[in-house]
Amino acid sequence: MTSLDREPKSYVVRQGLDRILLELEVGDTVPPERELAVRFEVSRETVRQALHELLVEGRIERRGRGTVVARPKLTQPLSLRSYTEGALLYGRVPSRVVVTWEDLVADDTLATDLALPPESTVMHLERVLLADGERIGLESTYLPKSRFGDFRQTFDPTTSLYAAIRASGVEFGEATERIETVLASPREAALLESTTAMPMLLMHRKTLDTNGVPIESIRSLYRGDRIAFVATLTR
Amino acid sequence: MTSLDREPKSYVVRQGLDRILLELEVGDTVPPERELAVRFEVSRETVRQALHELLVEGRIERRGRGTVVARPKLTQPLSLRSYTEGALLYGRVPSRVVVTWEDLVADDTLATDLALPPESTVMHLERVLLADGERIGLESTYLPKSRFGDFRQTFDPTTSLYAAIRASGVEFGEATERIETVLASPREAALLESTTAMPMLLMHRKTLDTNGVPIESIRSLYRGDRIAFVATLTR
Repeated sequence: MTSLDREPKSYVVRQGLDRILLELEVGDTVPPERELAVRFEVSRETVRQALHELLVEGRIERRGRGTVVARPKLTQPLSLRSYTEGALLYGRVPSRVVVTWEDLVADDTLATDLALPPESTVMHLERVLLADGERIGLESTYLPKSRFGDFRQTFDPTTSLYAAIRASGVEFGEATERIETVLASPREAALLESTTAMPMLLMHRKTLDTNGVPIESIRSLYRGDRIAFVATLTR
Repeated sequence: MTSLDREPKSYVVRQGLDRILLELEVGDTVPPERELAVRFEVSRETVRQALHELLVEGRIERRGRGTVVARPKLTQPLSLRSYTEGALLYGRVPSRVVVTWEDLVADDTLATDLALPPESTVMHLERVLLADGERIGLESTYLPKSRFGDFRQTFDPTTSLYAAIRASGVEFGEATERIETVLASPREAALLESTTAMPMLLMHRKTLDTNGVPIESIRSLYRGDRIAFVATLTR
């Protein structure tokens, strides 16, 4: 950058903050808004907007009354692997908190997704996904009761569902995944210890076995400040 | 849902709005906030939050002083295809507005990404991506000048870059893509005719040719209310 006069203030502040963050370690305190406004000779509002951007990007996080440098985002491969397997691959310790474990009647969309007759019974498992104890995502899995009904007795919902599915003799064949960004509802934000203003990544996944028969339909919501997905695309 | 008493108001409003949207066509006017607040017996603030969620999801959009039902999101395959090819695949007419077309000196990250010596010259092409005339994304492509320098003379930046790269005899081999969600800077929001409060999808892509030599590094920002990505995952 040659001339500050040519750059909007927000850009100058963002560049300045990026330089400050480069010199800090994870967990270090970020200088307060007031001090940054004086240093960059801009309004507190301009500093606040830049800090909000960094918060959404997961570069910084609130801790008590201060703001500290955040850990890098969890990176998840887009693959047939489960969240558990993906987190382990990147050296994070995965765990789960069970929110809902219920039977329900499939609506038309869900019945179609799972190739079930209308109004079939499906099992709904809703879990908060954690990495190193931190809430990262909220996952709702829908499984045909006719196929996996005995999971009620045999499956511990605090453990890996994919491991249980494989152990039941079902082999994963293919998945389609749709990725978009949304805001969380108040309930979802509370379960993720986040806010309704924080952008989330929403994934819809349908998984088929090696015979092309649907295994599950999944809706997962991931905290945008805590996760990034990576894909390798080949010819 | 059996008892309204058990559901938070925000959920009831959201369900009610979903039912209203089901009966409207694309472009139809959504009832005003005030009327919805009366109908659902909630505060205008509760209605406003639900409408904001729908706006971020791209289900509705502002038009003049009113709010109308939006077109479905553009769906893009995660693949080695370009934006242009992806949009055409889904029946949309792609176009581009050139913002920047400049030479610059690669910083360390960019030089590493493109496997170039430090401080090599790269060409930077920044374009707004449109579908059916609507601004969808902002794409910055970085190309090694040593390899594609003659594009300055031969390439029309309002046309497909991937077509030009292929025409120069280079074959795409593999890409890695990182997907996350961020907020736009004021400049980016203006170029996308959006706001700094709208969640965006940020993609970083590195593309290699069939010999494993880097072709390009791309940073694209897509309006979260206008696009979803789909991937097919196999074993």
